[in-house]
Amino acid sequence: MRRPDHQTTTCSAAAVLAPYLHEQAADFLRGLRLHQEHSTPTDAGGPGAEEATAALRQAARRISGALHTFRAALDPGWADHLRTELAWLSGTLAREHAYATRLGRLLEALHQLSGAALPAARTGALSAGGEERAALGVGAARAGALLERRLTLARTRAHSAALQALGSSRFHAVADAVALLASEVPLAPAAAGPASEVLHDPALRAEQRLLAAVAALPPDESAEPYNEARDAPWHQARLLLRLHRYAREVVHGAPDPVLTGAGHALDLHRDAAEAATAAASAARTPRIAPATAYALGVLHADQRHEVEAARAEFRGAWPYTAAVTAS
Amino acid sequence: MRRPDHQTTTCSAAAVLAPYLHEQAADFLRGLRLHQEHSTPTDAGGPGAEEATAALRQAARRISGALHTFRAALDPGWADHLRTELAWLSGTLAREHAYATRLGRLLEALHQLSGAALPAARTGALSAGGEERAALGVGAARAGALLERRLTLARTRAHSAALQALGSSRFHAVADAVALLASEVPLAPAAAGPASEVLHDPALRAEQRLLAAVAALPPDESAEPYNEARDAPWHQARLLLRLHRYAREVVHGAPDPVLTGAGHALDLHRDAAEAATAAASAARTPRIAPATAYALGVLHADQRHEVEAARAEFRGAWPYTAAVTAS
Repeated sequence: MRRPDHQTTTCSAAAVLAPYLHEQAADFLRGLRLHQEHSTPTDAGGPGAEEATAALRQAARRISGALHTFRAALDPGWADHLRTELAWLSGTLAREHAYATRLGRLLEALHQLSGAALPAARTGALSAGGEERAALGVGAARAGALLERRLTLARTRAHSAALQALGSSRFHAVADAVALLASEVPLAPAAAGPASEVLHDPALRAEQRLLAAVAALPPDESAEPYNEARDAPWHQARLLLRLHRYAREVVHGAPDPVLTGAGHALDLHRDAAEAATAAASAARTPRIAPATAYALGVLHADQRHEVEAARAEFRGAWPYTAAVTAS
Repeated sequence: MRRPDHQTTTCSAAAVLAPYLHEQAADFLRGLRLHQEHSTPTDAGGPGAEEATAALRQAARRISGALHTFRAALDPGWADHLRTELAWLSGTLAREHAYATRLGRLLEALHQLSGAALPAARTGALSAGGEERAALGVGAARAGALLERRLTLARTRAHSAALQALGSSRFHAVADAVALLASEVPLAPAAAGPASEVLHDPALRAEQRLLAAVAALPPDESAEPYNEARDAPWHQARLLLRLHRYAREVVHGAPDPVLTGAGHALDLHRDAAEAATAAASAARTPRIAPATAYALGVLHADQRHEVEAARAEFRGAWPYTAAVTAS
């Protein structure tokens, strides 16, 4: 995975890092402009606004990752401050998207759980199964309505919070800092050194932190699929994989499709885990009908099995087989 | 799998089939005697009675299988009648055991779903998971109590029905027929022919029926794990596998461990499917608390995933790989 790269072996760190940050800053500003064109203060944002926010968040994550991994080549006080502010912004903007994704995932799962057509042939032995599906159907419809109500409300609140954040003086300071970054990067003296040293070493450390985290992942725990407390090391691996991917993009100039696949599996893992939590949380709504609670229980278990499936997918996509199976 | 067998290539069909049926009839009568020694009319039968009933059912299934597969070598009217009566008896005796197994499986699953210890380290990000498990814990205890009540009642009724059956004149007629079978088998004239023809051909047909049923099993249907109507071909494959196993025992004189493993996977499949149905059925109890219904929903989904796991186990254990994957 660590193939030598001509550009970084002959250039200074500044000559690699500065253009990367310029480009990401330009993407950020473009996303911001598009968002302002497409969003209205009352609606929950159309597809154009959604796309603009996604671009904005993607650039913010990459800038933040570079500030973190290559801190030694940058003005450290500036880097730490901007990173904190970008984390606040990304988190605020991510929430609306997360609620929308979660609702979509849960409604889709409910549909699959209850909506498949029954075959024409029916015998006595099969009627119990049919009854189960009918019972699930009634509860599933009510559970879907409940989830839609809860998550749409949460999404609307997140949308307002995002709009409020984008209008705040705190955001304007971030936008100014990124606008400056589009033309000028506050570098440390070390950035004058060769990229092969100044950038490769921190990138290697980011990779090693990821490898250690993956090696320490708990082994398959099919006996305990509902132990949500065990998700944390997986969520941590997801963040470290992202930092490694971004650091690799800076050093090698291109994304690694294998890492993209493994990262996708960990994104699915996070989505399924959060959807399971949302189903369980909806089931704690006071005075819901037992059929609704039942469907939410089925849904919770289904999403926890999706969590397990995402772990298996990650293990399958992960190139360092020995490190994972030895854990 | 069809290795030649010295005994059956040189003997008559009668010389192979009659000792087999004598032996199974003797096992049946031994089981019956043990059952009478161990059972009391009031209790739901101790471990001794359970073991005796298991031996009795096992012999009844094998006799019934031989009567079915090797009908051409036997007095057909007698064989058909005894087979019907043995099916009635096995069915009646199996029910008590099935309810006990189902309850054990469901309580074990509930325990695993809710009982795993939380790790000591807890952060804000983990507390949602903890809450889910706590909520599941309350509902799981009530769901367990509900299932215990329902299935214990069903088991007690099945026990009474079994005792009533064992005291009936219908049962005494079956016992008499099996007692006769322990010394004398009503054979057809064809039984004088060589075992290599008279027994091998029907055994081969039993195998072919199984192969056809397995080849026709629907492909992996992970998108529709709750479509219980799709279980029927699997249940059918289980019965055909049993008939093939028993026919093979008659012809080759010994069980095939590969078939035993595949049969075990289909037994698990049946148990998980029935446990899922029991969970769904308990969830239709009027006036249960939402938390109870929720836990039953989780349990239902969990057992449906066990159904999927048993299918994967069967596919893994099945020796005719091409036939399964080509379906």
